[in-house]
Amino acid sequence: MQTLILSTPSPNLTFSYSPLTLKPQTLKTLTLKSLTLNRLSTPRTIPLRVRSAVAIEKEMPENERPETFLRESDDTSSPSSSCSTVRSRFEKMIREAQDRVCAAIEAVDGGEFKEDVWSRPGGGGGISRVLQDGGVFEKAGVNVSVVYGIMPPEAYRAAKGESSGNSDVKPGPVPFFAAGISSVLHPKNPFAPTVHFNYRYFETDAPKEAPGAPRQWWFGGGTDLTPAYIFEEDVKHFHMVQKHACDKFDPTFYPRFKKWCDDYFFITHRGERRGLGGIFFDDLNDYDQEMLLAFSTECTKSVVPAYIPLIERRKDLPFTDAHKAWQQLRRGRYVEFNLVYDRGTTFGLKTGGRIESILVSLPLSARWEYDHKPEEGSEEWKLLDACINPKEWV
Amino acid sequence: MQTLILSTPSPNLTFSYSPLTLKPQTLKTLTLKSLTLNRLSTPRTIPLRVRSAVAIEKEMPENERPETFLRESDDTSSPSSSCSTVRSRFEKMIREAQDRVCAAIEAVDGGEFKEDVWSRPGGGGGISRVLQDGGVFEKAGVNVSVVYGIMPPEAYRAAKGESSGNSDVKPGPVPFFAAGISSVLHPKNPFAPTVHFNYRYFETDAPKEAPGAPRQWWFGGGTDLTPAYIFEEDVKHFHMVQKHACDKFDPTFYPRFKKWCDDYFFITHRGERRGLGGIFFDDLNDYDQEMLLAFSTECTKSVVPAYIPLIERRKDLPFTDAHKAWQQLRRGRYVEFNLVYDRGTTFGLKTGGRIESILVSLPLSARWEYDHKPEEGSEEWKLLDACINPKEWV
Repeated sequence: MQTLILSTPSPNLTFSYSPLTLKPQTLKTLTLKSLTLNRLSTPRTIPLRVRSAVAIEKEMPENERPETFLRESDDTSSPSSSCSTVRSRFEKMIREAQDRVCAAIEAVDGGEFKEDVWSRPGGGGGISRVLQDGGVFEKAGVNVSVVYGIMPPEAYRAAKGESSGNSDVKPGPVPFFAAGISSVLHPKNPFAPTVHFNYRYFETDAPKEAPGAPRQWWFGGGTDLTPAYIFEEDVKHFHMVQKHACDKFDPTFYPRFKKWCDDYFFITHRGERRGLGGIFFDDLNDYDQEMLLAFSTECTKSVVPAYIPLIERRKDLPFTDAHKAWQQLRRGRYVEFNLVYDRGTTFGLKTGGRIESILVSLPLSARWEYDHKPEEGSEEWKLLDACINPKEWV
Repeated sequence: MQTLILSTPSPNLTFSYSPLTLKPQTLKTLTLKSLTLNRLSTPRTIPLRVRSAVAIEKEMPENERPETFLRESDDTSSPSSSCSTVRSRFEKMIREAQDRVCAAIEAVDGGEFKEDVWSRPGGGGGISRVLQDGGVFEKAGVNVSVVYGIMPPEAYRAAKGESSGNSDVKPGPVPFFAAGISSVLHPKNPFAPTVHFNYRYFETDAPKEAPGAPRQWWFGGGTDLTPAYIFEEDVKHFHMVQKHACDKFDPTFYPRFKKWCDDYFFITHRGERRGLGGIFFDDLNDYDQEMLLAFSTECTKSVVPAYIPLIERRKDLPFTDAHKAWQQLRRGRYVEFNLVYDRGTTFGLKTGGRIESILVSLPLSARWEYDHKPEEGSEEWKLLDACINPKEWV
């Protein structure tokens, strides 16, 4: 059993692949899912294992933002298929989302984002924006990226749900495309929560050697909240906005993606989640493609109304050194989750993604006290309890 | 290819194993070495892979330090073999080393260590001592532990260097014993360096089902320095003390273990080491057992003379916020190494070791700035350069 890593929840999209050797009976139920997501398995998912990872190309700095990171062949002005249009529309959507979120953060913070643009020689690239040590935010990172890569034919067949034993089609390596936005916003005030969101789209080309074989595509993403202190109305508001976004598309989305989020952001060695969740989904392709594009768009549009009101309410609350120390301890947990468990971060580090973009998710500062235990019934204890025993907020 | 993890450089000894399925031709050159040490391979080492890990027993707190964590059957007063005497002597040695280092730290700091004692129902246990937010030290942890476990027979045969294909001996699972001391000392002053040391001994029982089959044993350990600023005389003094300890036993030890240390404490995704090295060795069994016990003892005795003079010299130097911020950034690198690469930490977290003992190695506080680059020629740049390009200090 081996793994194919095709999409990531990290600030930087990173892709690696390995040859798959799968038993025919497993292929029909396979979705692309990594080792670290095994515990999230749904009935349609089987656990996979990593055999090898392929490093991605080194990125090159650019002086200006290009109109698009797509290859010319993916340009929407060409008479291309609707699939290549989704690539273009998704890139446009995440770049608009980046502008929207950064504008909202700058408005509340008073500071300015620093921007880094880069591209890769074989196609693709990205824009990292970071606001550090601002008026309100300790560190705010909002990244978009576009990646072109090649996946092995076995992975394509597996993704398509077709047994290699029964197939007459023998495609060669299949080019893929991926694009995503990822962001982590860490405010200074310990009563103002951290938020993370990430939305991404993955698509293969139609394999050239196998006429008629289709493209494959997936959507993934989520938005989750990590406070150091619980204000019930804040957490309810945040979850309610996520639920509204979900309910516009499918009434099963919110409960399913809320649980998925609680399961994903789990710090196994602590037995606690890093925060109070939100929504998370991955490898979604069993719905209409246009619907999922619209859903992802709605989710990115929900970030500002879900989050900025909480910042407005809490950014100027007075706090003590003890409040700050507890926030720093929870930031330590954030670091533990991202460096030990987050599949985007860990694979990004191993496959040569842009390190500064990957690690912009880490807080400006964090703290580890030996054997710290909040007093039972205290506000710190209540937060920890909610991280250990996830609650229904709406 | 699979992995057997039998020894760790972490603050907490943790052991996991998986059934090995090895080709006969690999067995003769096999030593026990984990995935994360592949790049340290010497000609006698082959890379192995993890298949599964077995969790260790949950520890139970104890109110008092026992005389020994050894099982009664390992007591030296019994007419046992010389091997079980090494178990007892090694435990005695590391507990004396813990007392010695803690006394030296308390003398220079003015604070007191907090002690936690625990045991495991199946035998073994440990003592964690932590001094946090003291006069001189931000966080100082000194742990000893003793672990009893069971290794699969294939691992025993592999360790013994015997082909399973040719062997008539079919032993069952083999009990093992391990003991170690591990410590990380993080001072407050940014001009005072962090030190880490860890010394450990591993031994199997003679397999009962295979009369005449021998015990196996290994030594591992090291002492390394992580300053935020270079004082050449400090680094030279530290390395010179390590070299003197090594030279008393074998003139090849220092150059070999110095390079091993530079190779081990490498943050791959940064292309830099976490610090300025020292000595590191693992799975040593191709020397006289008494000599290696004496060498390990000498190494633990060298910690105080190698390190405390540097603390005395630097603990009261005046510093600016900028010096402190740089120290905190380097602490961030320390966290990255320990959570992403250190095999003791990563396997400890996965196999259910005592979390607070494992993570006491993390600094009290750490910092991550986006895309921080020290000015060329600055003191910060010189430290970074020495972490990227290891130097000969003696």
